[in-house]
Amino acid sequence: MNVLNCNGERLWNSLMEMSTIGATDQGGNCRLALSAEDQAGRELFMGWCKEAGMSLAFDAIGNLFARLPGLDDHLAPVVMGSHLDTQPKGGRFDGIYGVLSGLEVVRCLNEQGVQNRRPIEIAVWTNEEGARFTPAMFGSAVFTGSLALQTALDACDVDGISVAQCLDATRHVGELALQRPFDSYFEAHIEQGPILEDNGLPVGVVTGGQAICWLDVTVRGMSAHAGTTPMALRKDALFGVAQMAAQLETLCADFAPQGLVTIGQLNIAKSSRNTIAGSVTFTVDLRHHQDSQIAVMEQRVREHFQGIADQRGLPLAIERHWLSPATPFDRECVAAVRRAVEALGYPHQDIVSGAGHDAILLARHCPTTMVFIPCVGGLSHNEAEDVLPADARMGCDVLLNAVVERLQR
Amino acid sequence: MNVLNCNGERLWNSLMEMSTIGATDQGGNCRLALSAEDQAGRELFMGWCKEAGMSLAFDAIGNLFARLPGLDDHLAPVVMGSHLDTQPKGGRFDGIYGVLSGLEVVRCLNEQGVQNRRPIEIAVWTNEEGARFTPAMFGSAVFTGSLALQTALDACDVDGISVAQCLDATRHVGELALQRPFDSYFEAHIEQGPILEDNGLPVGVVTGGQAICWLDVTVRGMSAHAGTTPMALRKDALFGVAQMAAQLETLCADFAPQGLVTIGQLNIAKSSRNTIAGSVTFTVDLRHHQDSQIAVMEQRVREHFQGIADQRGLPLAIERHWLSPATPFDRECVAAVRRAVEALGYPHQDIVSGAGHDAILLARHCPTTMVFIPCVGGLSHNEAEDVLPADARMGCDVLLNAVVERLQR
Repeated sequence: MNVLNCNGERLWNSLMEMSTIGATDQGGNCRLALSAEDQAGRELFMGWCKEAGMSLAFDAIGNLFARLPGLDDHLAPVVMGSHLDTQPKGGRFDGIYGVLSGLEVVRCLNEQGVQNRRPIEIAVWTNEEGARFTPAMFGSAVFTGSLALQTALDACDVDGISVAQCLDATRHVGELALQRPFDSYFEAHIEQGPILEDNGLPVGVVTGGQAICWLDVTVRGMSAHAGTTPMALRKDALFGVAQMAAQLETLCADFAPQGLVTIGQLNIAKSSRNTIAGSVTFTVDLRHHQDSQIAVMEQRVREHFQGIADQRGLPLAIERHWLSPATPFDRECVAAVRRAVEALGYPHQDIVSGAGHDAILLARHCPTTMVFIPCVGGLSHNEAEDVLPADARMGCDVLLNAVVERLQR
Repeated sequence: MNVLNCNGERLWNSLMEMSTIGATDQGGNCRLALSAEDQAGRELFMGWCKEAGMSLAFDAIGNLFARLPGLDDHLAPVVMGSHLDTQPKGGRFDGIYGVLSGLEVVRCLNEQGVQNRRPIEIAVWTNEEGARFTPAMFGSAVFTGSLALQTALDACDVDGISVAQCLDATRHVGELALQRPFDSYFEAHIEQGPILEDNGLPVGVVTGGQAICWLDVTVRGMSAHAGTTPMALRKDALFGVAQMAAQLETLCADFAPQGLVTIGQLNIAKSSRNTIAGSVTFTVDLRHHQDSQIAVMEQRVREHFQGIADQRGLPLAIERHWLSPATPFDRECVAAVRRAVEALGYPHQDIVSGAGHDAILLARHCPTTMVFIPCVGGLSHNEAEDVLPADARMGCDVLLNAVVERLQR
């Protein structure tokens, strides 16, 4: 395999220039979706695309597509991309790295005279973060048909400003068809977790997205005076919940290392220091690579919780708030990434994406995969989010070679 | 012993008449301290006292004292009492029962021609509930010297109205000396817990108040993404806390049945369903009849928590928020109550007060004790708070005979 290399310095400089737009005090970025800063970030990117000979177009939800024509330009494009919007106190790389790696790939094709049979596009998805308009992965959800266009246009931010109003103001909207065919979609991204860094590897070959099961649990006890109620006569919901939580951690060990469990929210109703908890609600976030295993996890959680509740005489309600099945990425796209990283000789591992990404939605639309690079300390959604320039370069090299292979299909 | 009996019907009727003032929709009472309703309740009571030949006077914090002269009127009085203020959604008996049982005792003395060597008084303490002005047991705290008068007068409710302003408005204030000598103090009260009801007993001989130790605990973990962070790399503060709570319950069993432990408040900082808890704070309420034992409980809690924190690598901070020593009641007063209940032949048990009462403060000022009656379902601070008329009568009989014995000292 004839290996290509990107220009790591040029990529890094573009990342740094983008990070000057919406820069925050603590070294991060604030470019909320469809804000003036987001618009400015996109316009910087659009200027670079024009310089690279790309044409620009929008769809009805403001997803931006920069396109370099192919030799057979009627063929479905190979698409790279991610997002340029950020969390309110976001980092410089989450999303941005995928967009600007795509740009670096196109710059390399131009510079190195690589001919592309298929057209190549860079997608900038609208409001991936979900920080200004919910849900997250908003633009790719509309594109792939899992979120209705009108629902999305009507969505308002906390100030009551709608997406439709924002699109009118920015004019970042157009007539490109939703759900139009893609040959494939490749998204480079920071891992947003500590695994690659912990293993000392610059590249993750992403094989898919996890299954997620969200449960809402309510345990009812009997609210009573902490000083006047003997232990034997109590129905303390909190101690019931403590036992459930402790068993949850033990149970999860049976699914190691793929199974993940988190209690992120816990609330004692009308809590007071000297009142026995009468009602406690908490969330359970279960994750696993396999749908079959997440179903087993959920079943075992339900059985364990019910057993504890019955033993303590505490009424229990468990509601499944959300179930998102596992998303295996396309075997051929993953193989293309693996061939690229092996040809480049970069240390790597297979990894499953723990976070949501536009690619998770795109995977239901076209052959899709991702390339991960480590982020320092596993930190993301944080102004201190950081990556090593060498990792950024190596991840982009992998994207470049995988995409070039795909472009010739 | 020549046993006296109160008029249970008269007592009940007075309780019911008082409960018409500040009556709530759900059958409870709202007479917030120093409110118009509290004033009206006191004035109803004052009218009854005048009819019983008692004189009325206030001290500087608005504590009301109704006095029946003794044969040796220069002797220190035997004082009964409690409070007439209620929680915002309070019951008809908490406090009120102690005041109106005192009135019933005086009515019996008059009716049955019992001569009292010592003067007898009924105290109505200001703002016992602490619902309008903090702290609770406000009036008795000023009287006994544990709360400075000026601090108390300056205290404001949520609307910024001060105690001093309220006392000006109600004119329920006067020049009776604070900390003046009492021969003894007897407070009849509902138990505010389920023990007497559970044991099927109408009377509790109260031997003292519990020691209370309040701890504030903070466990720090590492906030991280629930989907991208392997279990082995997590520092999940919530699972640490769950283990601590579970061990706390086990530990408490070693101190059964006197040891009580409650986690009433628990907060995950910046909680989110899909974020690993980075910091959890929670309260621990420890109670025991004996100071020596509560010290052992606290020490063992600290050791257990530290052990778990060290094992999990979670920084831990434990602060002692409050320590209130146990309050043993006066041996002679308790004995007088015990002789009374035994002479009457009523089923009874010794009990330790789990809640705070004016008597707990008075115990540092003069020989003190309490008489408990059951409340239905152990329920208190609730509009549904209820007592059985027969229990109210029997408790008052015990108070009557104990006080009559004491009056002749």
